[in-house]
Amino acid sequence: MAHFTTDENAQYFACGYSCDHAIFLELGGEAFFITDARYTLEARTAIQNAEVIEASDLWQALIEKISSGLKEIHFDPAQLSVQAYERLRKALPDLKLIGELDYHRKQRMIKTPKQIALIQKAQELNRGAYKAFAQYLHTAHTPSEHFLQFKVKEFLTHSGEFDLSFEPIVAINANAAKPHALPSKDPLKVGDLLLVDVGLKYERYCADRTRTARFGEGFSFSKDQSFEDKELQKIYDVVRKAQEYTITNLRAGMTGQKIDSLARGVIEKAGFGAYFAHSTGHGIGLDIHELPFISQKSQTVIEEGMVFSVEPGIYIPGKYGVRLEDLVAVQDSRAVVL
Amino acid sequence: MAHFTTDENAQYFACGYSCDHAIFLELGGEAFFITDARYTLEARTAIQNAEVIEASDLWQALIEKISSGLKEIHFDPAQLSVQAYERLRKALPDLKLIGELDYHRKQRMIKTPKQIALIQKAQELNRGAYKAFAQYLHTAHTPSEHFLQFKVKEFLTHSGEFDLSFEPIVAINANAAKPHALPSKDPLKVGDLLLVDVGLKYERYCADRTRTARFGEGFSFSKDQSFEDKELQKIYDVVRKAQEYTITNLRAGMTGQKIDSLARGVIEKAGFGAYFAHSTGHGIGLDIHELPFISQKSQTVIEEGMVFSVEPGIYIPGKYGVRLEDLVAVQDSRAVVL
Repeated sequence: MAHFTTDENAQYFACGYSCDHAIFLELGGEAFFITDARYTLEARTAIQNAEVIEASDLWQALIEKISSGLKEIHFDPAQLSVQAYERLRKALPDLKLIGELDYHRKQRMIKTPKQIALIQKAQELNRGAYKAFAQYLHTAHTPSEHFLQFKVKEFLTHSGEFDLSFEPIVAINANAAKPHALPSKDPLKVGDLLLVDVGLKYERYCADRTRTARFGEGFSFSKDQSFEDKELQKIYDVVRKAQEYTITNLRAGMTGQKIDSLARGVIEKAGFGAYFAHSTGHGIGLDIHELPFISQKSQTVIEEGMVFSVEPGIYIPGKYGVRLEDLVAVQDSRAVVL
Repeated sequence: MAHFTTDENAQYFACGYSCDHAIFLELGGEAFFITDARYTLEARTAIQNAEVIEASDLWQALIEKISSGLKEIHFDPAQLSVQAYERLRKALPDLKLIGELDYHRKQRMIKTPKQIALIQKAQELNRGAYKAFAQYLHTAHTPSEHFLQFKVKEFLTHSGEFDLSFEPIVAINANAAKPHALPSKDPLKVGDLLLVDVGLKYERYCADRTRTARFGEGFSFSKDQSFEDKELQKIYDVVRKAQEYTITNLRAGMTGQKIDSLARGVIEKAGFGAYFAHSTGHGIGLDIHELPFISQKSQTVIEEGMVFSVEPGIYIPGKYGVRLEDLVAVQDSRAVVL
C-alpha cells in the first residue's frame, strides 16, 4: 500500500532514521526519505532501504514523486494538517487520499524479540534510576516536589546520556491524586506519600514505571510499603493486589477490555471503583502510548509479543493517590514483567 | 470573528490559561474553554473571560456549541488535523470552515509594554544563566559537548524553576557549523570554539540568545573574543559587525527583507555570503518562533512594539561556526536590545 508519514517514530520504524523535517514515502515496493539539506548527509549514512531525496520544499517533492499515475495513497488523518492535505488535494485532484487512523501503530503492535529486549533494557536502566533517586533522597535536605521533578531527570537521563520517555511525575500526598498537578514548593517530609511515574528511552524504545512509597527511614521504591494512615494502607494494598492479580491472570486471547476488568474488578470489589478513573494500561514501544489500549472500551485481542503497561490506581481527592505500574510482554500466552 | 484553536499559546494569549487537552472557542462576543475533568478546576480558577465547559469528548462539545445557525468559523489549517476537520465537516455540513494560516500569531505580532517587559525579564534571567554556566566551565574537568548540553539546563532552569524555550544548543568547533549536529563525547579543550544558543521562559515568554566564545583562561561569553586562528577571528569579527550594524541601523517601516539585507550585506561584502544559509531573525514571544520573520522573503513591515532576534552567522563546514544573537524590541522606531 502506498503511504506517507511525517511521524518520526513511524519513519524510524520504517527505515531506521528520522528527523523533525521529513516525509517518508512508500510507493510500490520503493521507499523514499524526503528531507532538507540539514539532514541529508546523516540520513544517507543511516538509511539502507530508502532513497534519500533532498528538497527545500518537502511537500512539493512529495507531489512530484506521486504525481504520475498513482491512484490512491494512505496517511494518518490524526497526524496530517489540513494545510498539507489541501495542498495535496489541489495539486493532485485525481489522487484518492485515504485517511487511516493509526495505520503505522498497527504495524508495530506486535513486537519482535529484539524490540522486546530493547524495552526491557530501557526498563532495567529505569529501575537503576529509581535506585539512584532513592539513594539521593536519603541524603537530600527537605527538597520540594518542584525541585524533585527537576532532580529526577539527572538520574533518568544518566546525566544526559539518555532521553526521557515523557516529563517525569513526582508528586507528594494530595498532589498524587491529581493527574496533572502543578508541582508544589512544599518540602518532602518524613511520613509523606511519594508517587513517582517516570521513564527513559534506550535506543528510542520507551520505559515506563510507577511506584508509590512512604518517605522516611528505610525508604525505598520497593512494593512493600507501610503507611501510618490505615485507609491509605488499605488503598495501597488494594492497588497492589489489583496490579499483581492482573499480571498473573491475563492471557493471550483476552480483549483489552477483559484485562482492564481484571484490575477494575479488584478495585470495585474493595469499594474504590469510583476512584479509579483511568485505563488499566497502554501499549508502549517507540511511542510512550501506542497500541494496544487496555481500557474499558478496547476490543483489541491481546496476542503474543504485545507489550503494555499494567497500572491501576486509586485517587482520593485532597488526600492522596496510589498507582503501581510495570510493563509486561505477552510470551507463552502469559504476562512477563519487563 | 468566530474561531477555535487547540494551540496552547493561542489559548493562553486569549484567556490566560491553557492545557494540552482543550479547545478555545470565540463566538459572537462570547468565549468558551472546552476541556476534560482533569483541568476544569484549574481552568475555572485561572480564566476570567471565558466559560469553562467540561467534556470528555472535546470535539463533540465544540460541535454542539457551534451547531445552531453559525455560518462560518475560522481555524489555523497548519494546526488542525484532517481527522478533526473531517469530523466537523460531517457533523456540520452547512458551516463554512475557513482556514487562515497564523491568524493568532498575527494578533500578537505587536507586543504591549508589559509583554516586552516579560521578554526582557526572561532574557535577563537567561544572561544570568550564561554567567553561571561560564563560572561552572572554569572549574569543570574536560566535560564533553554531550554532558554540557545536559548541564546547561541546570543553569537555564535555575534547577527546575523555569522552563526552557527550546532544547539548548552547545556545540564545539566543527559541530558549531552544523545546525543539527549530534552532540559529541569529545572533551572541551583550551582553545576550542564554544557556541551556545539557549533560552528559558519567564511567565511563558521566551528568551533566546547565542554567544560564540574561545574556551580557555579568562573565558567568558562577552562579545570580545580572541581566537588563535586568524581566519576564525576574521569570521567572528564579520559576524559581530553584521549583528551590531543591523541592530544600529534597522528602523520601523523597513520590511523584514530589508533588515535581513543589512546583516547579509555585511557578510556578503566580506566574502562569506555563501556561508550564511539561514534567516537573520525571527519574532519571539509565547512561541520561540513567531511573527515577524526577518528573512530574504519577508514582506512584513516592521512596526513599533515588534520583538525579534538578530542572529547572523557564518558556518565553515568541517571547521567551525560563529553566530551571535540578541533580542530587540522596536521602540521609538529603533531597535532596543532586551
